Amino acid sequence: MKQVAVLAGDGIGPEVMDEAIKVLEAVRKKFDLSLRFVTATVGGAAIDQHGEALPAATLQLCEQSDAILFGSVGGPQWESLPPERQPERASLLPLRKHFDLFCNLRPARVFPALTGACPLRADIVGDGFDILVVRELTSDIYFGTPRGREGSGPDERGFDTMSYTRAEIERISRMAFAAARLRRKRVTSVDKANVLSTMVLWRQVVTEVAREFSDVEVRHIYVDNATMQLVRDPHQFDVMLCGNMFGDIISDEAAMLTGSMGMLASASLNSERFGLFEPAGGSAPDIAGKGIANPLAQILSAAMMLRYSFGREDAADAIDRAVEKTLVRGIRTGDIATGGETPVTTAAMGDAVVAAL
Amino acid sequence: MKQVAVLAGDGIGPEVMDEAIKVLEAVRKKFDLSLRFVTATVGGAAIDQHGEALPAATLQLCEQSDAILFGSVGGPQWESLPPERQPERASLLPLRKHFDLFCNLRPARVFPALTGACPLRADIVGDGFDILVVRELTSDIYFGTPRGREGSGPDERGFDTMSYTRAEIERISRMAFAAARLRRKRVTSVDKANVLSTMVLWRQVVTEVAREFSDVEVRHIYVDNATMQLVRDPHQFDVMLCGNMFGDIISDEAAMLTGSMGMLASASLNSERFGLFEPAGGSAPDIAGKGIANPLAQILSAAMMLRYSFGREDAADAIDRAVEKTLVRGIRTGDIATGGETPVTTAAMGDAVVAAL
Ligand SMILES: CC(C)[C@H](C(=O)O)[C@@H](O)C(=O)O
Ligand SMILES: CC(C)[C@H](C(=O)O)[C@@H](O)C(=O)O
Repeated sequence: MKQVAVLAGDGIGPEVMDEAIKVLEAVRKKFDLSLRFVTATVGGAAIDQHGEALPAATLQLCEQSDAILFGSVGGPQWESLPPERQPERASLLPLRKHFDLFCNLRPARVFPALTGACPLRADIVGDGFDILVVRELTSDIYFGTPRGREGSGPDERGFDTMSYTRAEIERISRMAFAAARLRRKRVTSVDKANVLSTMVLWRQVVTEVAREFSDVEVRHIYVDNATMQLVRDPHQFDVMLCGNMFGDIISDEAAMLTGSMGMLASASLNSERFGLFEPAGGSAPDIAGKGIANPLAQILSAAMMLRYSFGREDAADAIDRAVEKTLVRGIRTGDIATGGETPVTTAAMGDAVVAAL
Repeated sequence: MKQVAVLAGDGIGPEVMDEAIKVLEAVRKKFDLSLRFVTATVGGAAIDQHGEALPAATLQLCEQSDAILFGSVGGPQWESLPPERQPERASLLPLRKHFDLFCNLRPARVFPALTGACPLRADIVGDGFDILVVRELTSDIYFGTPRGREGSGPDERGFDTMSYTRAEIERISRMAFAAARLRRKRVTSVDKANVLSTMVLWRQVVTEVAREFSDVEVRHIYVDNATMQLVRDPHQFDVMLCGNMFGDIISDEAAMLTGSMGMLASASLNSERFGLFEPAGGSAPDIAGKGIANPLAQILSAAMMLRYSFGREDAADAIDRAVEKTLVRGIRTGDIATGGETPVTTAAMGDAVVAAL
């Protein structure tokens, strides 16, 4: 029996989570999976109910579970809180750190049925592109110390520390190269080795790890150039290997370039294949509660959970295929209804995926 | 008499610089400017000739001059040097720091005659967009200390320090708001205040400075979201205010989105209006020496010099208009010849701008 901690969170989180569970229930029956779902509060909802974004009970549930299915957290209600108490910083970051979820996988691909939604020119999009951003998630300037504020008046100063150890770079690099092996065998490592000492070490270690994977091609690119190349020709990329901060930036740009923000899943894994699975999109407070959000990112995140944490490629593939089929049938929520289709509701989209299974 | 230090550098630098000087000579006569040009070596060329990227004589010339017109530096020949000796890091960064060039202005606009070169969908480009990135250039993680390497084995660690003082944030913010006042009166400040302590101070100080400019609208956006919004709808931005590192990333993305990388100028100013003026594009070693590079970015950088360091709006406007006219006439170098035009040479483009003056 695998137990899933279900943390729906804020904004559109709860409504898209309902659809993901609906789909998981359907594959559970079909593939005879032994799955149990237990819910807990997180993020702004948890602040409102328990005074903190990651209550002890929620953390404990996650510890007792085999995977975390995460919705999204944050919204305008909590923006006036001090930064370290805000939903994202006080729930997502501690969860990543606590479970050592160092490996963040963010696929950014254009779904064949949705090339028209892509913001790039048709001749650049071609028949779509398919990038996997592999982002380090538990180190870098997100967690480096010292950090803080000091001094006063004009000299008052805020500071943070970017830092990577060789071991940290090695383990995320190995994940990226291993992933590339199962794909088009190209890794592009993103750094700023022309300016940052941390990134000089980064480039050096990636180069060393690359020697263990002689069948995979490696290339190094500065982060500023990467943002340009993504726009100019996204097809040149297969796996993009990034530190935590550059990965944050690059993965969001790549995601938006697909035109399918509401469709993108992510997995954050530790070395025991325990993971947190969440949509890349955010809590979208402006459309929350209206029943119009696109649940596909959450559904595809559930598929990533089956694939990466539970080793059930069969069930994961079935969900991916059902999503494709649903799109090919022309079923669209508002965010992807660019071809004049009548948008369906969140629930109708979930039902359609179940029907296509 | 104003003296210009002309540092052509590497790659396409020398050939595009020739055209910029040609155009400056023409406006000099036309507007009766009192200008003198003195050249010096910099970058890889200086390493080859003098063993260092920024020889003392070059620095001295810059000190005795009223502005620096810079080409570009770097190329594959020097990539095997240790990072701190590479052309970019050993010439550009010290020049910025030495002259306190804290204010980097990077216009990213679609030239009306070139909307077709833009990589975004025509309905997103519309009749073009016009963004001014105001990037802080002498602080942040580029210059923060401590930085370096320590330890050994798997624990060997590279580290850098991101840091901003209130005074540093204040002065760049004032530049951005003042610039917005002369444009569409909107500043978008780019930060990562949800994670970084430095950026919490950044957001706070920008908010305070915004109160001095009550006629200018201010908005704060996370850097990851900024990379997405740029792609989704670049028209929402007027002035984008960024720290050094985020500005590096954002300005390059915005530049590429215009489709006119070879057309983009930049100015780096200190508080005495002394400045370094350079194309945003880089040294493009692959096409160097072929006489096919686009000189317009260098020419427009020369116009920025006349405008910002010498206060000659008239001559600067004349160059800008001559460039527009040349484009409208359909004259194109290869990089912007997307409408099937026969590409002209670097020198022919320079001549065409002179003729259009
Ligand atoms: C919410 C924020 C802390 C987070 C990050 O920057 O990692 C988010 O942007 C993400 O990419 O998951
Ligand atoms: C060459 C490099 C050091 C430089 C930077 O990162 O500032 C360049 O990318 C730029 O943007 O001017």
